[in-house]
Amino acid sequence: MASARIPFPFTAIVGQAEMKQALLLAAVEPRLGGVMVFGDRGTGKSTAVRALAGLLPPMKVVPGCRYFCAPDDRSPCIEGCRDKAGKRTEEASVPFVDLPLGATEDRVVGSLDLERALATGEKRFEPGLLAKANRGFLYIDEINLLEDHLVDLLLDVAVSGTNIVEREGLSIRHPARFILVGSGNPEEGELRPQLLDRFGLSVDVRTPTDMGDRIEIVKRCDRFDRDPAAFVAEFQDSEQATLEAIAKARKLLPKVQVADEMLGLGAQLCSAVGADGLRGELTLLRAARAQAALAGKKEVKRTHVAEVATMALRHRLRRNVLDDTGSTSRIARAIAELIPA
Amino acid sequence: MASARIPFPFTAIVGQAEMKQALLLAAVEPRLGGVMVFGDRGTGKSTAVRALAGLLPPMKVVPGCRYFCAPDDRSPCIEGCRDKAGKRTEEASVPFVDLPLGATEDRVVGSLDLERALATGEKRFEPGLLAKANRGFLYIDEINLLEDHLVDLLLDVAVSGTNIVEREGLSIRHPARFILVGSGNPEEGELRPQLLDRFGLSVDVRTPTDMGDRIEIVKRCDRFDRDPAAFVAEFQDSEQATLEAIAKARKLLPKVQVADEMLGLGAQLCSAVGADGLRGELTLLRAARAQAALAGKKEVKRTHVAEVATMALRHRLRRNVLDDTGSTSRIARAIAELIPA
Amino acid sequence: MASARIPFPFTAIVGQAEMKQALLLAAVEPRLGGVMVFGDRGTGKSTAVRALAGLLPPMKVVPGCRYFCAPDDRSPCIEGCRDKAGKRTEEASVPFVDLPLGATEDRVVGSLDLERALATGEKRFEPGLLAKANRGFLYIDEINLLEDHLVDLLLDVAVSGTNIVEREGLSIRHPARFILVGSGNPEEGELRPQLLDRFGLSVDVRTPTDMGDRIEIVKRCDRFDRDPAAFVAEFQDSEQATLEAIAKARKLLPKVQVADEMLGLGAQLCSAVGADGLRGELTLLRAARAQAALAGKKEVKRTHVAEVATMALRHRLRRNVLDDTGSTSRIARAIAELIPA
Amino acid sequence: MASARIPFPFTAIVGQAEMKQALLLAAVEPRLGGVMVFGDRGTGKSTAVRALAGLLPPMKVVPGCRYFCAPDDRSPCIEGCRDKAGKRTEEASVPFVDLPLGATEDRVVGSLDLERALATGEKRFEPGLLAKANRGFLYIDEINLLEDHLVDLLLDVAVSGTNIVEREGLSIRHPARFILVGSGNPEEGELRPQLLDRFGLSVDVRTPTDMGDRIEIVKRCDRFDRDPAAFVAEFQDSEQATLEAIAKARKLLPKVQVADEMLGLGAQLCSAVGADGLRGELTLLRAARAQAALAGKKEVKRTHVAEVATMALRHRLRRNVLDDTGSTSRIARAIAELIPA
Amino acid sequence: MASARIPFPFTAIVGQAEMKQALLLAAVEPRLGGVMVFGDRGTGKSTAVRALAGLLPPMKVVPGCRYFCAPDDRSPCIEGCRDKAGKRTEEASVPFVDLPLGATEDRVVGSLDLERALATGEKRFEPGLLAKANRGFLYIDEINLLEDHLVDLLLDVAVSGTNIVEREGLSIRHPARFILVGSGNPEEGELRPQLLDRFGLSVDVRTPTDMGDRIEIVKRCDRFDRDPAAFVAEFQDSEQATLEAIAKARKLLPKVQVADEMLGLGAQLCSAVGADGLRGELTLLRAARAQAALAGKKEVKRTHVAEVATMALRHRLRRNVLDDTGSTSRIARAIAELIPA
Amino acid sequence: MASARIPFPFTAIVGQAEMKQALLLAAVEPRLGGVMVFGDRGTGKSTAVRALAGLLPPMKVVPGCRYFCAPDDRSPCIEGCRDKAGKRTEEASVPFVDLPLGATEDRVVGSLDLERALATGEKRFEPGLLAKANRGFLYIDEINLLEDHLVDLLLDVAVSGTNIVEREGLSIRHPARFILVGSGNPEEGELRPQLLDRFGLSVDVRTPTDMGDRIEIVKRCDRFDRDPAAFVAEFQDSEQATLEAIAKARKLLPKVQVADEMLGLGAQLCSAVGADGLRGELTLLRAARAQAALAGKKEVKRTHVAEVATMALRHRLRRNVLDDTGSTSRIARAIAELIPA
Repeated sequence: MASARIPFPFTAIVGQAEMKQALLLAAVEPRLGGVMVFGDRGTGKSTAVRALAGLLPPMKVVPGCRYFCAPDDRSPCIEGCRDKAGKRTEEASVPFVDLPLGATEDRVVGSLDLERALATGEKRFEPGLLAKANRGFLYIDEINLLEDHLVDLLLDVAVSGTNIVEREGLSIRHPARFILVGSGNPEEGELRPQLLDRFGLSVDVRTPTDMGDRIEIVKRCDRFDRDPAAFVAEFQDSEQATLEAIAKARKLLPKVQVADEMLGLGAQLCSAVGADGLRGELTLLRAARAQAALAGKKEVKRTHVAEVATMALRHRLRRNVLDDTGSTSRIARAIAELIPA
Repeated sequence: MASARIPFPFTAIVGQAEMKQALLLAAVEPRLGGVMVFGDRGTGKSTAVRALAGLLPPMKVVPGCRYFCAPDDRSPCIEGCRDKAGKRTEEASVPFVDLPLGATEDRVVGSLDLERALATGEKRFEPGLLAKANRGFLYIDEINLLEDHLVDLLLDVAVSGTNIVEREGLSIRHPARFILVGSGNPEEGELRPQLLDRFGLSVDVRTPTDMGDRIEIVKRCDRFDRDPAAFVAEFQDSEQATLEAIAKARKLLPKVQVADEMLGLGAQLCSAVGADGLRGELTLLRAARAQAALAGKKEVKRTHVAEVATMALRHRLRRNVLDDTGSTSRIARAIAELIPA
Repeated sequence: MASARIPFPFTAIVGQAEMKQALLLAAVEPRLGGVMVFGDRGTGKSTAVRALAGLLPPMKVVPGCRYFCAPDDRSPCIEGCRDKAGKRTEEASVPFVDLPLGATEDRVVGSLDLERALATGEKRFEPGLLAKANRGFLYIDEINLLEDHLVDLLLDVAVSGTNIVEREGLSIRHPARFILVGSGNPEEGELRPQLLDRFGLSVDVRTPTDMGDRIEIVKRCDRFDRDPAAFVAEFQDSEQATLEAIAKARKLLPKVQVADEMLGLGAQLCSAVGADGLRGELTLLRAARAQAALAGKKEVKRTHVAEVATMALRHRLRRNVLDDTGSTSRIARAIAELIPA
Repeated sequence: MASARIPFPFTAIVGQAEMKQALLLAAVEPRLGGVMVFGDRGTGKSTAVRALAGLLPPMKVVPGCRYFCAPDDRSPCIEGCRDKAGKRTEEASVPFVDLPLGATEDRVVGSLDLERALATGEKRFEPGLLAKANRGFLYIDEINLLEDHLVDLLLDVAVSGTNIVEREGLSIRHPARFILVGSGNPEEGELRPQLLDRFGLSVDVRTPTDMGDRIEIVKRCDRFDRDPAAFVAEFQDSEQATLEAIAKARKLLPKVQVADEMLGLGAQLCSAVGADGLRGELTLLRAARAQAALAGKKEVKRTHVAEVATMALRHRLRRNVLDDTGSTSRIARAIAELIPA
Repeated sequence: MASARIPFPFTAIVGQAEMKQALLLAAVEPRLGGVMVFGDRGTGKSTAVRALAGLLPPMKVVPGCRYFCAPDDRSPCIEGCRDKAGKRTEEASVPFVDLPLGATEDRVVGSLDLERALATGEKRFEPGLLAKANRGFLYIDEINLLEDHLVDLLLDVAVSGTNIVEREGLSIRHPARFILVGSGNPEEGELRPQLLDRFGLSVDVRTPTDMGDRIEIVKRCDRFDRDPAAFVAEFQDSEQATLEAIAKARKLLPKVQVADEMLGLGAQLCSAVGADGLRGELTLLRAARAQAALAGKKEVKRTHVAEVATMALRHRLRRNVLDDTGSTSRIARAIAELIPA
Repeated sequence: MASARIPFPFTAIVGQAEMKQALLLAAVEPRLGGVMVFGDRGTGKSTAVRALAGLLPPMKVVPGCRYFCAPDDRSPCIEGCRDKAGKRTEEASVPFVDLPLGATEDRVVGSLDLERALATGEKRFEPGLLAKANRGFLYIDEINLLEDHLVDLLLDVAVSGTNIVEREGLSIRHPARFILVGSGNPEEGELRPQLLDRFGLSVDVRTPTDMGDRIEIVKRCDRFDRDPAAFVAEFQDSEQATLEAIAKARKLLPKVQVADEMLGLGAQLCSAVGADGLRGELTLLRAARAQAALAGKKEVKRTHVAEVATMALRHRLRRNVLDDTGSTSRIARAIAELIPA
């Protein structure tokens, strides 16, 4: 079978700054908890996610491990392959799993290996898509069309980083640390607020209205379609630069400091816009820290908070019957008041 | 596979006094019949339950027993392992079972061990999550999304302490004494009153509004996330103190006396607030006794009754068409009248 | 496995005279056709039924019989165990089957013994809960939540005393003579009139409003919970007295006479209150006879009819659009007119 | 296994003349196509049908035939047992099959004998309830609760006398000539007119209002319940007389003549009352002929037509928006006009 | 097993000229695409179809062929039986398949022969009812009660003459050329216009209102019921005449000419009555040609078109909001204008 | 089994210019992404698609390849048959798969070869209809009656050219490059806009109103029906000409240039008519290029854009509440303004 399709270069995407920024933050700080992309059809949502995964450098894995465990991970692997592998390591590209429509729950979480069970009587776990996505991306297009309980399950795993399987007499838990990216068109039915709240960041994408942008996009798509290799080559430098920025930010991240003043600012913002619960504040803190790291700073500043506030809070606002201003505007107003530029 | 995640310390939870109190009462007197937690999303409900389970000391179990039977339990075990084990005992941490979304009924109650049935023709019972939760906690997030019949079943078992399985030609009963904790967001659909009434206690949790609290919570979550071990160490002393308080209260509980006057007070309270049935009164009695025990008293006082009345009765009030005061206020008013401070 | 829980003593139940009376009548004359208990939650419905079953003396059974056949029953047993057993007999406590929520139809009626079918190719019947309840009680809590067709089936069997199984190539009929007791909360959905009519008696239970009663109930529950054996001992004498009253009434029952005048009275009552069909009259006759027997009388008197009329007719009244008086009042009024005290 | 219960004597049924008459007609002329009984609950519908089946004399059958084929039937049996049996014959009581609620379609029509298929690889047909009812009665209580397609299937077979099975790779047809009796309470949902029309006769049964009748019924039920054998003996003579009347009428039936004038009368009646289709007329002709035969007459008279018209037409009337007179009255009016007494 | 029932003679059917004509046309030109019969219950729809099938002479088939292939068919049979059979041929009566209610899709289209698959590992196709109906009639009573997708499937096969099976790893196509006859009562729900349009012809049948006809029908049904053989003998000559007319028309059909003027007339008719699509015109052409052939003519005349127009177009009219005249009248009006008699 | 039916010649189709043009464009540039055909019933939609497939010349395939891989395709085949085949090639006609109604998802995407799995324990993939359609056409009649998730899946595969199977423990991806053609009648329910947008082109077909056309169509259908071979011979030349035009256009396509001005024109058009997303522009570009290629031009001109704009955009317009002009008119108006003739 042919190898994976060449992905469209991440830096060749025209416009859509907010979506690209959110994906970069998630790549720097995977514990942000997934990105939800709202938007029009045909705006390149899936292309962008696939592009980011393609951009990242190969990762080191334990040879033969069905969960792509990292050789330097201290926790013992469910299959003990790290012990078998000794000091050997392998490289693998960052996983990108596109949840196919109609995938059954057992293919998602994994299931009993029936073949082996019938042949040898041995109960062995057949890893599912959650295992395949470990240390990579799990993309779900039109997530609002998925059944609620499957969305719940995916969010549970995305947050805990562990897939717990209790089925068919199996009782398995394996690592499943991935960045969940969902996309949906709000016109086709909404996610329950309960579920939305569990996504770390959310972004809006719109069909670009600038004529120049539109023509440029069509031209790039067409060029890529006709000769992918040549097109990718054009963007090699910008891709490399982005890759390095991510790597640097990841290294910097644990050292970024957050002053109490910044935490207070976050709390004020959440309170001002009417965000339920504390997930908003926690996400704001983490996103601002990742934003600072991407900017090469060791301390979170007011601007970092301002830059990520919309995507961290937009999907958590309580509905305000007396104020039908959109979420985005309400946040913008609060930022303008609390963090005057 | 890695061992269980380190739980957040129970005493590191900021605020949420009512929820913490209810969980402590349930830990002291398991026959209270479960705790129902109503509240906003992202307020740390699951964290608190998990924290309490993590706080409790390991328990003694019969070696090899699939139901974690206590060595000093007089009732014979279904599998006769106590006889096989002789005087040997083992230690196990207090079980915490988080009912995963989509767990099937057969995984919950247990089922025929198909593998063995096919291989050897022997019908053996494969214990389910109810067995795993024996002597520990069973936590169900968003219990209002579970099917009614599964909730019913869980409540039946929680109250009787026994799981009766009548399926697939099996006819099994095994001990399943656990503290059931359910959580739900009332905005997403309510439990039937019939089911609510069967929970012992209920508590409301809200997003804290105090800015200082909010910042402190975010800071603690972040610190815990980044270095769990160091964070846990900070709270070692308070955890130990709580643990000892529980142990002392458990020992004291059977000796706590309840005067008829207190029973009359309970009956008056229930009658005043319009609680159907007598489960309210019975729970009030038991909760007050546990409250007294936690306070180190050998006799239940009016204050003990007052302190637990809201959580024992809130979810049992008949709807009063002429009085749309919330349940909590109606109880507070009755307490104020009947038990003037 | 531990033996059954010690049941609460029947005579320790405070109040609820009507329910207790109905259960005693059913114990004396099983052909009354079941008891339907309407009422509030938490009023001890299940406790009462379980208590009555616990109160009855052990019954003689054919050793090894899977249907608990009586040794002096003349009809041959489906499994021929009476012949195998010869003159040997065994004792067994009166069965009490609590239909667990979610029990499948095949567990209720019985099914093919799959294990044996697969192993030996022999088709053998695996008796279900209906067989287990033979000669005892079958209790269904919240019967209004059961599917209609299962209720129908249970009523069919309860009336005919025979379970007919036509499934999976099996064609079995076995004795299933039990007293069916259903309970339901009318607020949670009603049974179809067609089904209600098939219950012999019906009773209403309400949360007691007398403060003294309430306190006494809570105290007794608590005492029983803490030391069941001691509590049961307190009521040994009253339990024994009830037991003897039942035994005496059972012996007397076939001799109790019913004059035509009493039948006429029954017909007038049914006609006056607007009860459809003739099941009401037949039940009234039988209940009055059992009532007389419990009173030690050899002839049915007007008072016996009056005493059982409400529970025999309450659930059979046609709805009267012009008269929205409750069923109970309408019957009381008719009794007052026809049987002046 | 105990033998069948002793049925209540047919002639001991008090009142309900129309239902009894319809059942007798169906016993004399099985091609009438089934009887539909509408009516109140508790009016002895099932008792009457069972009684008629119990009344009929045993029938001669081919030994070992799973379809109870008659030895003098000229059509070859599906299993060739007539050839094996030679001249030997056996006796069997007239089948009475009471369709149990929840019987599955495969138990009704028959199915592959799985046991044998698995063991020997031979595909053999396992006859269902339709086969068991051959040459007898098939009774369906509350037929309006059955799924339409099952009712359709039962009516198809009842009319054609043949059960055609096309399932699981089987392609079987076997004789299934039975009298279908359905009962239903119109308050609980109606049959589709399409289905109703396929029943030959229909009768209404009501709770008797005469006090004397009511008392007599209750007394008889009670007497029968307490000592069935003695009760049955009381009615031996009237039972025997009915039996002989049926036998005589069956012999006479083929000789009964119908003049064109009578057919014209039937057509006028159907047209006057507004009965769709011609099934009404055909049934009227056949029922009148059976009525004449029961009366010992060799020719159908106007009175015979009048006596059966209501039960042959009641369920076939088109609804008349301008005339909301009940079906029964409309037919009575037409009879009064066309057949003045 | 008894041989098939003797069918009622086609020419003994009283009245219903349109239905009989449509069936004859379909017998002469099977590519007309099926007949839809609308009408009252009990008007002999199924009798007529069965009668026509019974009337037709036996057909020659390849011995052992499971699809009744014709020996002179040039297309090779799926099972190669023509080669095996050599020059031998057999006779078989024209198939009449009455789709039993509740027949499953796999029985209709055919399925994997599971028995053989399990026993020998060989995948063999088990032909279904579509195969059984090849070269004959497939009758579906109450086709409006069938699921749409099954109706669609039947129409697909009826038009293409080929059954394509894509299931269970089978990929089979076999001949299935049958005349589809559906019947339905419009009061019980309608077919989608999309489906109706795919039937070639449609006819209305009504309960006859002429008294003489009604009496004659009842008399004939009764006579046939009592002595089928004698009744059939009465009509032997008319049956033979009809049979010969069909045979002659079939031979003549390919030679019948249609002038452009007639095609124009057809187009004008369709346009005048508002028939969507061109299926109407094509059917009109074919039906007129078959009509001419039945009349022994070698050229289609205006009268032939007029005679078949109603049955070819009635079910294809667009609804006209401004003109609620029934379909039949609208067509009659258009015929009167375009083809003045 | 008989070989495939002879298709109707593409060039013998009367009228329907837009549909024929769209199909030709899709044949020249398969990446256009499918054609959606809206329209009346009976207008020859399926005939046209089948005709185009029949018109195309046989294609070269790797011998024995179950996916009809092209010998000169560089990507390795999933089954390695190219290696086995060496330089040998075979010819196969262009696949035309007509999705049969009721085809199950596993037959569409392929599934585990159960037979082989049971026999040898080997898990082998059984290709489905998507594999059969590789390099050809997949036609779905009444696509609006398909379940959304199946339409989604088909569109996913049509766009990506790859079928990803994640079921039953299989994890397969194989080439599935086909032209998807769906047809639907808007009166019978619409596709979701989300799905419509994913089709490349859409066309409207209507019943022709010209009398001459209608007569010609009926005559051609009739002639084809009666002697397909003779009819096809009549159109051999025009078929050959069309075939060559396609071949020439395919070769020319990669060389066709598109000036920025044309891209701007496309963007203006999309913006003027209110088409969401950028799929419209990209399709317009590709369709115009294919149109130019068919016209033998090396550069896209304004007329090419104008000629394809309607079919590329018609199904992507946002609904405009203030302007209820049909989509087609709105596009025509925009073309008239932007590209004056």
